[in-house]
Amino acid sequence: MRLMKVAVISGLSVCIGSYAGIEYERSKWKRRENLISSRLGVGGSEDGSPESASSNVLGSSQLWCHHFLPSAVSVVEASSQVPSTPLSSRTDLLFPSQTPGNNKLQRASEIMRHGYPSSDQLKHYDNYVLMYDRRNRNAYWVFEHLTPAQLDRDKKQSDRTKSVFLEDASVHPYFRSTNGDYKNSGYDRGHLAAAGNHRHSQEYMNQTFHLTNISPQVGKGFNRDIWNDLEKYVRSVGRKSRNLYVCTGPLYLPRKDPYDGKQYVKYEVIGKNNVAVPTHFFKVLLIEDNQGEFELQSFVLPNQEIPNGTKLRNFLVPIDSIERAAGFLLFDRLPKEKLRSINGKKI
Amino acid sequence: MRLMKVAVISGLSVCIGSYAGIEYERSKWKRRENLISSRLGVGGSEDGSPESASSNVLGSSQLWCHHFLPSAVSVVEASSQVPSTPLSSRTDLLFPSQTPGNNKLQRASEIMRHGYPSSDQLKHYDNYVLMYDRRNRNAYWVFEHLTPAQLDRDKKQSDRTKSVFLEDASVHPYFRSTNGDYKNSGYDRGHLAAAGNHRHSQEYMNQTFHLTNISPQVGKGFNRDIWNDLEKYVRSVGRKSRNLYVCTGPLYLPRKDPYDGKQYVKYEVIGKNNVAVPTHFFKVLLIEDNQGEFELQSFVLPNQEIPNGTKLRNFLVPIDSIERAAGFLLFDRLPKEKLRSINGKKI
Repeated sequence: MRLMKVAVISGLSVCIGSYAGIEYERSKWKRRENLISSRLGVGGSEDGSPESASSNVLGSSQLWCHHFLPSAVSVVEASSQVPSTPLSSRTDLLFPSQTPGNNKLQRASEIMRHGYPSSDQLKHYDNYVLMYDRRNRNAYWVFEHLTPAQLDRDKKQSDRTKSVFLEDASVHPYFRSTNGDYKNSGYDRGHLAAAGNHRHSQEYMNQTFHLTNISPQVGKGFNRDIWNDLEKYVRSVGRKSRNLYVCTGPLYLPRKDPYDGKQYVKYEVIGKNNVAVPTHFFKVLLIEDNQGEFELQSFVLPNQEIPNGTKLRNFLVPIDSIERAAGFLLFDRLPKEKLRSINGKKI
Repeated sequence: MRLMKVAVISGLSVCIGSYAGIEYERSKWKRRENLISSRLGVGGSEDGSPESASSNVLGSSQLWCHHFLPSAVSVVEASSQVPSTPLSSRTDLLFPSQTPGNNKLQRASEIMRHGYPSSDQLKHYDNYVLMYDRRNRNAYWVFEHLTPAQLDRDKKQSDRTKSVFLEDASVHPYFRSTNGDYKNSGYDRGHLAAAGNHRHSQEYMNQTFHLTNISPQVGKGFNRDIWNDLEKYVRSVGRKSRNLYVCTGPLYLPRKDPYDGKQYVKYEVIGKNNVAVPTHFFKVLLIEDNQGEFELQSFVLPNQEIPNGTKLRNFLVPIDSIERAAGFLLFDRLPKEKLRSINGKKI
């Protein structure tokens, strides 16, 4: 139902529809949970081999992460590789040669001898966490955690006019977005983690101006209007919740070409660093009330001018449509039995 | 120079040109090396804080990886996070509270309480390594290591007709490409790690038929022709080299729209899982001779019908044009002083 309203407004129904499939149902949580369990079954590994690759090389604390952080499994696996230097006695210590599961990793150390490429870059700021997409020069996602205490602190502790947009020197120049890329592009430098959520410290606010947290957004009718409305709504929810977890990110959604009937992803890139202009943005709210029960709200807005007065609830979509398009699961560690409501619908 | 020839053939000069910038020069290696060194400076961390985040929580072997695997830094950093479960005594052991650098990670554990999303998925097969891009349902990259011994083994040990295309059950169904996605799409299921490089074992060959290693490729004039020629060329090089490292992957390159003069990335997606059809493919060869010296060759081919008889050398491009477009560095652990030749040009 909601989906149809989005369609009318955005004119891009097909792209969301193609991901959404059917209505999001609670049963999907269960199915997903089972999938994750089977993926992380005792002795199981990501590639289906009976021996967990990680368990051979990681200490107990790492293994513990392996079991408690399903979405980070591949990351843990990555870090468990032997380095690309020649096999040394140190490597032999890490990989005792008699363990059968080590063959793949030994072979991987030869294949990957000259470096493991990665297009992800995880960034920890003081008050938000971000995964940077080096290919598109945008974040994959940005996570915030808001509480009434944080939002009610004296706003005078920070002054937005003192914050400046900062290129992130920790990103390799090949993949770094710059202020020059945005200049004359016609797009605003839009925040993913909202500056207004981090007003209780000048330093925290300044950090939201890192260009890793910025995406090209349509200004009039979007960044300066409905996106700002959404950010204000988020804060209003945060002031009433025990905890509010917010995940924000860009999407690059396909749409059907009317001429050949095929589906295409098409997005502009700006500046000499080819910063991608997302077709849509998502924001997912996980709201914890004082009873420790949860409500989920997931929005997708097209990156375009949206008429004033359009209701935010028109942009509610099933969360799996975001997950399928973004390429990752969201809040998959949530205790599902505590989820009481999705997009305003009791479950 | 080479670039211009690619332009003529592919008709997509602008998209490569916009990444390539200027000719690849040896000095860039040096500059890159310096960048990496500064990024990994003593006590440095990715986000520029004076204390390495990893060093607080990882054992010496992990720290060692941190210093020896620059491209995996962000991965190591990711795995060093506290789990998303409530802070327990176990967490306290991992994060002694007096260390200043731990504040960000403690805060991150709160922000990321319900899961760390990841769009990467690292896969170790017996004879190749692959990073899967869950958003595009293609690999980011596939690495192989070929030797004369491997390529000269009795080919009768494997039979290609016994191999079948396999969906990869280790990939979550939301992100998994399927045979159904390719059916009636008009595209071939093209190998990234070539089946023909893994003929010495039926099992190894079968593994190259996992759909994680497959991308939609134009059949006639590409997959069945020049791409196959490139694969044969790779094997001919491998038979003459001490070691040959091959990295293969898809690209999604922007091109200028003649109507509005802006740059757009545009690619088709097929099937109900929206498997991306790459606009181009790259293959990078790092060739080690018997003296332990290296030669680098880097190709980008457009995913389209290419006239018979077109020379492979027409598709040589500067490696940084691939890196910028793909979003990761390649062979960044290579001992640069041992690099003797790039794309046939002595340095």
